[in-house]
Amino acid sequence: MTRQRLFELIQSRASYLCVGLDTDAEKIPAFLRDQFPDPLWEFNRRIIDATRPYCVAYKPNLAFYEALGTAGWELLEKTVRYIGPDHFIIADAKRGDIGNTSRLYAKAFFEQLPCDAVTVAPYMGQDSVTPFLGFPGKWVILLALTSNPGSADFQFAQQPEGIPLYRKVARQAMQWAGPDELMFVVGATHPEDLRQLRQEAPDYFFLVPGVGAQGGDLNAISQAGLHAGGGLLVNASRSILYASSGPDFAEAAAAEAQALQLEMQQILEGKGGGEVAK
Amino acid sequence: MTRQRLFELIQSRASYLCVGLDTDAEKIPAFLRDQFPDPLWEFNRRIIDATRPYCVAYKPNLAFYEALGTAGWELLEKTVRYIGPDHFIIADAKRGDIGNTSRLYAKAFFEQLPCDAVTVAPYMGQDSVTPFLGFPGKWVILLALTSNPGSADFQFAQQPEGIPLYRKVARQAMQWAGPDELMFVVGATHPEDLRQLRQEAPDYFFLVPGVGAQGGDLNAISQAGLHAGGGLLVNASRSILYASSGPDFAEAAAAEAQALQLEMQQILEGKGGGEVAK
Repeated sequence: MTRQRLFELIQSRASYLCVGLDTDAEKIPAFLRDQFPDPLWEFNRRIIDATRPYCVAYKPNLAFYEALGTAGWELLEKTVRYIGPDHFIIADAKRGDIGNTSRLYAKAFFEQLPCDAVTVAPYMGQDSVTPFLGFPGKWVILLALTSNPGSADFQFAQQPEGIPLYRKVARQAMQWAGPDELMFVVGATHPEDLRQLRQEAPDYFFLVPGVGAQGGDLNAISQAGLHAGGGLLVNASRSILYASSGPDFAEAAAAEAQALQLEMQQILEGKGGGEVAK
Repeated sequence: MTRQRLFELIQSRASYLCVGLDTDAEKIPAFLRDQFPDPLWEFNRRIIDATRPYCVAYKPNLAFYEALGTAGWELLEKTVRYIGPDHFIIADAKRGDIGNTSRLYAKAFFEQLPCDAVTVAPYMGQDSVTPFLGFPGKWVILLALTSNPGSADFQFAQQPEGIPLYRKVARQAMQWAGPDELMFVVGATHPEDLRQLRQEAPDYFFLVPGVGAQGGDLNAISQAGLHAGGGLLVNASRSILYASSGPDFAEAAAAEAQALQLEMQQILEGKGGGEVAK
């Protein structure tokens, strides 16, 4: 998906919500396990149908699928094909390996599967990231500042340039790729850092996890990160997927997603609506 | 596999060779594609049979399998089950995610699959690493200093402590886990750094990629890293797997693996043999 098309989706749905498909066999409603031969697929299908109007992106976290072995890979494939071309699909894989290997991961997500983007870890440097680039309409979303407590261990380590590591990562990566094929992960739990990174990277999309179960504040991160020159994709997973454990789980997920969408709409309008998506 | 058992294998085979199963559909001998319904499995099976006596570990790099989709996951499963319990099996996955997700990856590799170890990327910090710990006989192999050119981008960045980032990573990780369940990846292309890290981490195993196609020198890294207090696993992939593209590919792989094993045997004997495996 091109940047222009992603902007258009955000405008037409008045939403920058990404639904994280962290599908966990232990958390899906019990009745699905009793009544369906493939309860995880049934869960994903209903969640997608229920939330489609309120979000612009879906983000399956690969761990939940790999934990199921071959069956999980089949579920992933079926799920991303079901989502279709009107949503931005992010394989949340946090990959990164030496050149020839990263290229294979890229092919797995961009050619074997119809994903638009893959999350990539920066530790191994340039030749672990660039093999994911150069696929037309496909994106690298590089981990800069993550939402978890462990982000403090290395990402905030002060560098000789007088900046923390995550900003050094972003600065270097912007030398490798432009805002048409590179985004950054910036956790919702760090709104002040998000604001600073926005100043350095005005044109880049940020994928922001950590709203919902992890406690990030949608309004704070939107004020810090959303502006005319660039965009946000804000992810919520558990708060939507597991809003209810009863037969009404899909309706409850839709209500959660819609509530976030309405909040986003207000924020977008407060910002001047269309202006956000330049 | 316990540390003691790994030491015993190294002693009994006089080898610390790890064979990297980077099985690439474009590189396997053409006759396999013509003659077998599942040429990649045929390739892996023959490579494993041919190299078993000369190595103590196998390391499938997950990218090569994931690039094949569901079929690749099946190939991986079949391959690691075929290796069996007399070799240390490393899922070279370079994973790392927030706690609940890392735990799922751990279950995928340690419970769904009979892997002994998984490679993990450190960027997301402690809570992305520790969920892989605490599985009896299972190991985390944390990326410290990788063998690729991009290792220079961030891993060598000088930290406020006066050490490069990769040493900070190792220092912190040693606070999280002992040498019975934690190893470090240290690339063969950096023998002097390997020597320094060995001084800081005398009891930890190092997994050393980069010998062979990437140009690392076996003797140099063995002198730097192999000693009584700890061990090495030295990985070679392409130089063994693709030693010949003809019908003799398995024999050629065996010869390559044996040549490395004999070199290792001499190094071990020069070091006092049994003393290495304390």
